[in-house]
Amino acid sequence: MPLPSSSPHSAVQPMGRIPPCDLLSEAKAAEIEAEAETILAEIGINFADHPEALARWQAVGAQVQGERVYLPRGLARKLCQTAPARFVQHAANPARDVEIGGARPVTAPVYGPPFVQDPVAGRRDARFGDFQLLMRLAQACDSVTHAGGTLCEPTDLPLETRHLDMLLAHATLSDKPFMGASTDPERARDSIAFAKILFGYEGTELPVLLSALINIGSPLSFDATMSRCLELYAQAGQATVISAYAIMGATAPVTVEGALAQALAEVMAGIAYAQLIRSGAPVIFGLYASALDLRTGASIFASPEVTQLTIAAGQLARRLGVPYRAGGCLTGAFQSDAHAGYEAAGSLWASQLAGVDFMLHGCGWLESGLATSAEKFVLDADQLSAMLRQYGGIAAPSGAALAALREVGPGGHYLGAQETLAEGQARLWKSEVVEDRPFDAWDHAGRPDTVWHAHQRVSALLQTYQPPALAPERRAALEAFVARRKAEIQRG
Amino acid sequence: MPLPSSSPHSAVQPMGRIPPCDLLSEAKAAEIEAEAETILAEIGINFADHPEALARWQAVGAQVQGERVYLPRGLARKLCQTAPARFVQHAANPARDVEIGGARPVTAPVYGPPFVQDPVAGRRDARFGDFQLLMRLAQACDSVTHAGGTLCEPTDLPLETRHLDMLLAHATLSDKPFMGASTDPERARDSIAFAKILFGYEGTELPVLLSALINIGSPLSFDATMSRCLELYAQAGQATVISAYAIMGATAPVTVEGALAQALAEVMAGIAYAQLIRSGAPVIFGLYASALDLRTGASIFASPEVTQLTIAAGQLARRLGVPYRAGGCLTGAFQSDAHAGYEAAGSLWASQLAGVDFMLHGCGWLESGLATSAEKFVLDADQLSAMLRQYGGIAAPSGAALAALREVGPGGHYLGAQETLAEGQARLWKSEVVEDRPFDAWDHAGRPDTVWHAHQRVSALLQTYQPPALAPERRAALEAFVARRKAEIQRG
Repeated sequence: MPLPSSSPHSAVQPMGRIPPCDLLSEAKAAEIEAEAETILAEIGINFADHPEALARWQAVGAQVQGERVYLPRGLARKLCQTAPARFVQHAANPARDVEIGGARPVTAPVYGPPFVQDPVAGRRDARFGDFQLLMRLAQACDSVTHAGGTLCEPTDLPLETRHLDMLLAHATLSDKPFMGASTDPERARDSIAFAKILFGYEGTELPVLLSALINIGSPLSFDATMSRCLELYAQAGQATVISAYAIMGATAPVTVEGALAQALAEVMAGIAYAQLIRSGAPVIFGLYASALDLRTGASIFASPEVTQLTIAAGQLARRLGVPYRAGGCLTGAFQSDAHAGYEAAGSLWASQLAGVDFMLHGCGWLESGLATSAEKFVLDADQLSAMLRQYGGIAAPSGAALAALREVGPGGHYLGAQETLAEGQARLWKSEVVEDRPFDAWDHAGRPDTVWHAHQRVSALLQTYQPPALAPERRAALEAFVARRKAEIQRG
Repeated sequence: MPLPSSSPHSAVQPMGRIPPCDLLSEAKAAEIEAEAETILAEIGINFADHPEALARWQAVGAQVQGERVYLPRGLARKLCQTAPARFVQHAANPARDVEIGGARPVTAPVYGPPFVQDPVAGRRDARFGDFQLLMRLAQACDSVTHAGGTLCEPTDLPLETRHLDMLLAHATLSDKPFMGASTDPERARDSIAFAKILFGYEGTELPVLLSALINIGSPLSFDATMSRCLELYAQAGQATVISAYAIMGATAPVTVEGALAQALAEVMAGIAYAQLIRSGAPVIFGLYASALDLRTGASIFASPEVTQLTIAAGQLARRLGVPYRAGGCLTGAFQSDAHAGYEAAGSLWASQLAGVDFMLHGCGWLESGLATSAEKFVLDADQLSAMLRQYGGIAAPSGAALAALREVGPGGHYLGAQETLAEGQARLWKSEVVEDRPFDAWDHAGRPDTVWHAHQRVSALLQTYQPPALAPERRAALEAFVARRKAEIQRG
C-alpha cells in the first residue's frame, strides 16, 4: 500500500529534525548480522510445544532436532524480505489511524504492570478501575497516539475473561488504535473477532486493525503461546511486535555486541516465521532492553550499555527494512522522583536516536514495568509531547528573525517585540506539569513537587475527558460478543 | 600545538560513539551565517564604555557610531580564523589536564548560583562553606573533569575580595583545572597573577592555566566589564568562554532561527575581538539557552526549541572551527524532583548531540541557575558519568559474545555464564545514587526518594575526600598573595 508520508529510513530529513543515529560502522553491522546467522545455524532456536511450527520450518529447509530449529545461513533474512517497511494501523476514528514505520514514532502507554503506585496509598494490585482511568488518560493525551493494550493488569477480573473486558474498554473509552491479547491463542482469536465487529469487517482479508505483543523467551525460545498467537495474528494480516527480551547479563549476553547478535537472531526468526505463515504480514522488530545489576538484582535503564543496545538494534532493524519498537519512558524507580525523571528522559532520548517507530511503554512506566501510576503517565506524556514536536524540525520563516532583531536592536529586549507577542509564544512548547510560579509563591504553597502537579494534570484531563462516539448498534454488538464469549469461557 | 586525541569534529568516530548531530542543512547553515553577517553589518553590536575597543575595531575597518560597531561582512569570520580548534587547559595535577575541543566533553559544575537549596532547611543564601563543600565534591567526582569557577556565590564574604578566597579554595581543595574571575578587570588580573604563582610561571608567555566566562549582554552588547576581562585573558593567552545569553523571547528572538543568527553574530564578534587582542587566543563558542514563558515568567529548558537551538549552535561552532560550550544539567525546578530529572537529562542529551566540548553547569543546577544543592550536584555527576562512558563506544571483543551464547543456549540464562561473571558485570555502568533494594525492603525503609540517596552519596564522597598535594611553599606564596591583595583592596 503506497503511503504519503516520508519514512525516517529515507536519507532526506525534514530540516532540523534529529535523525536516527547509526551507531555501528557498516563493517560492524555486517559482522553482527553474520553472528546472528551463525547463532541460528549452529546454536538454533526453540519453538516449544508446537509441532506444526517445526514442520513448517522443516518444509523450507531448516533442520529440526527435538524442539530446536537450525536455520541455514541466509534463510531467515531471505524470508524477512516480504515484511513491509511500514504500514497503517487503523483506529475506530479514521483521523487517528497511525502509520508505523512512518515519519514519526507512534506512541503507546505502558503494557502489563500488575501493580499501581498511588502517591498516597502506596503500591497495590492494579484493578479494572485503574485500567479504565489510564485508558481515559490515553484518549485525552494528544501525545499518546496509540492506546496500547494491557495498560495494567485488571487483577480484580477473572484471568480467563479479562481480555474481553479490556477490549470493550478500548472500544468504548477510546477511539485510538489498540492491541489485541497475546496471553493465549483463544484470546488472540477473540481479539480479532472483536476488532472485526468494531471496524465492521467480515472475511479474512483485513487491513491492520490490531497489533499484538509477541515476547520472545530469550535466549532463543518461542513458547507455544507466543508462536501460536504470532501465527493467528499473522494469518489474519494483523501486526505483531516480535520482541527480543534482552536483560543484559540475565536473558541476554552482558555485552552490547552479544545482546545485539542474539536479539537480531531471535527477531529475524520470529519475523521469518510470520512471513512463512503469511507473506507480507506486517511485523515490528521489537526489543525490550535493560541490564541486570548482579550485586543487587536491580534492573538498569538508560545506562550507556542499554542505550547503545537500543540505538544499535534500531540500525539493525533499518537494515532489515522493518519498523522498530524499543525504549519508552523506562525506569526502575518505585515512584516518580528524580531517579524516574532522569531514567525516563534518558530512555526516551535513546528511543528517539534509535529511530523507534512504535514506542510501547511510552508513558506510565515505573518499577521496571511492575507498576504504573496515573501521575507518571501524564509526566511521561508531557515528555512525549516535547519529543513529537521535535519531529517537526525548525519551522521559522526566513527573514522574520532579522525583522525582530532590527526592531529590538542591541541592548534591548524581545518581551514586547511583534514576533514574540504574536505567534512566537504560541509556538513555544510548554510543559503542562511543571511548577511555574515564582519561588516565593511555590514556597508559600507548601513546596509541592512534580507528583503534585502531575496529580492536578490527571484531574484536569479526567474532568474534560469525553468518551468517543460509538454507534449504539455497534456497541450493542460488541457487548453481545463479549457476553457470549464470557458465557462460553465460563462453561469451559 | 599538536594533540594526540581525535577531535569530535573529524569525520571518523570511534565505533559505537554517538556523533554530534548536524541539525541544519548546508544551505540553512549558510543562510544563518549570512543573517549573522547582516546583523553585524547593518544592526551592529555595542561595546559599551570602552573607547579602546572602539578604536581597535575602527583600525580594522569597522564603522563606529557612538558605542555601536558595524562590522563589514566577512570581517568577523575572517578574524575568527586564528582561533584554535582545540587546546589543553592545564591543571595543578598534570594528570588532570583537559583538552577542550577534544575527543570528549570537559565537564564543569554549576557556575554562579546565589542560593543553596537544602533538602531540609529549604532555600538560603549561599555561603563560602557551601562553596568549599561543592569544591570537595567536584574534586571527588571522577565524572567532573574541570572544577569550574564560582560554584556558588559566597555571599557571606565581602564582594570585593571573595574572588581571592575562591581562587585559594580552588588551589587548596582541588587539583583540577578551574576558571578565573570575570566580574571585574582587576579580579581578572588577580586571577592570572594567582595562576602564575600556582603553576610556577613568570612573564607573559603562558600556556592555558585558566578559562573565564564572558557573558554577552544579549542582544548584541558587550559591557565594559566583559570586554575588558575578555581583553585581559586574551592578552595573557588564557581561554575565554564567549557566551551568547539567549533566553528565547526575552534576550533573543523567540524563534530558533532568529536566536541562532543573533548568537552567532554575538559570539563571532567576541571571538573576533579576542583575536584582535591576540591572534591565536584560545576561545570557546558559548551559548546559554532557555526560553521564557511569558504567561508565567518561568524559564523553559529541554524543550524542543531550546534543544534545537543548543544542537544547531553546536553545528555553527563546528563550522567556525572552535570548541563549543552549551547545555549542562539545566532545569527550572526548585528541588531535585522528577521535573528536575526530566529536564536535566533532556538538557544533557541535547548537550551531547550538540557536540559540546566544554560543559559548564554540568552538575548542581537548580532553579534556572539561581540555586544549587549538593544533592543535585551528585545526581547530575552520576548522569555525567553515564554520558562520558558513551564516548568510549562499544568495546566488546568480537567473538566473546558467541562463546557466551554457545555456553548458555536457548532457554537458558546468563546469570552464571563465564562472560557475565568475569568482566561483564564490572564493565556495566551502574548508578551510585539509585534505590536498588527490592520493593519490600525499600517500602519498609520508609520509601526514601532519590534525594535521600543523593544525600548518602554526598556524605560518602565527603568522608573519603582527600585534599590534593600542594607544596607548602607554594601554598604559602598563594596565601601571601591573597593576603596582600586583600589588604590593598581594603585600603581602596
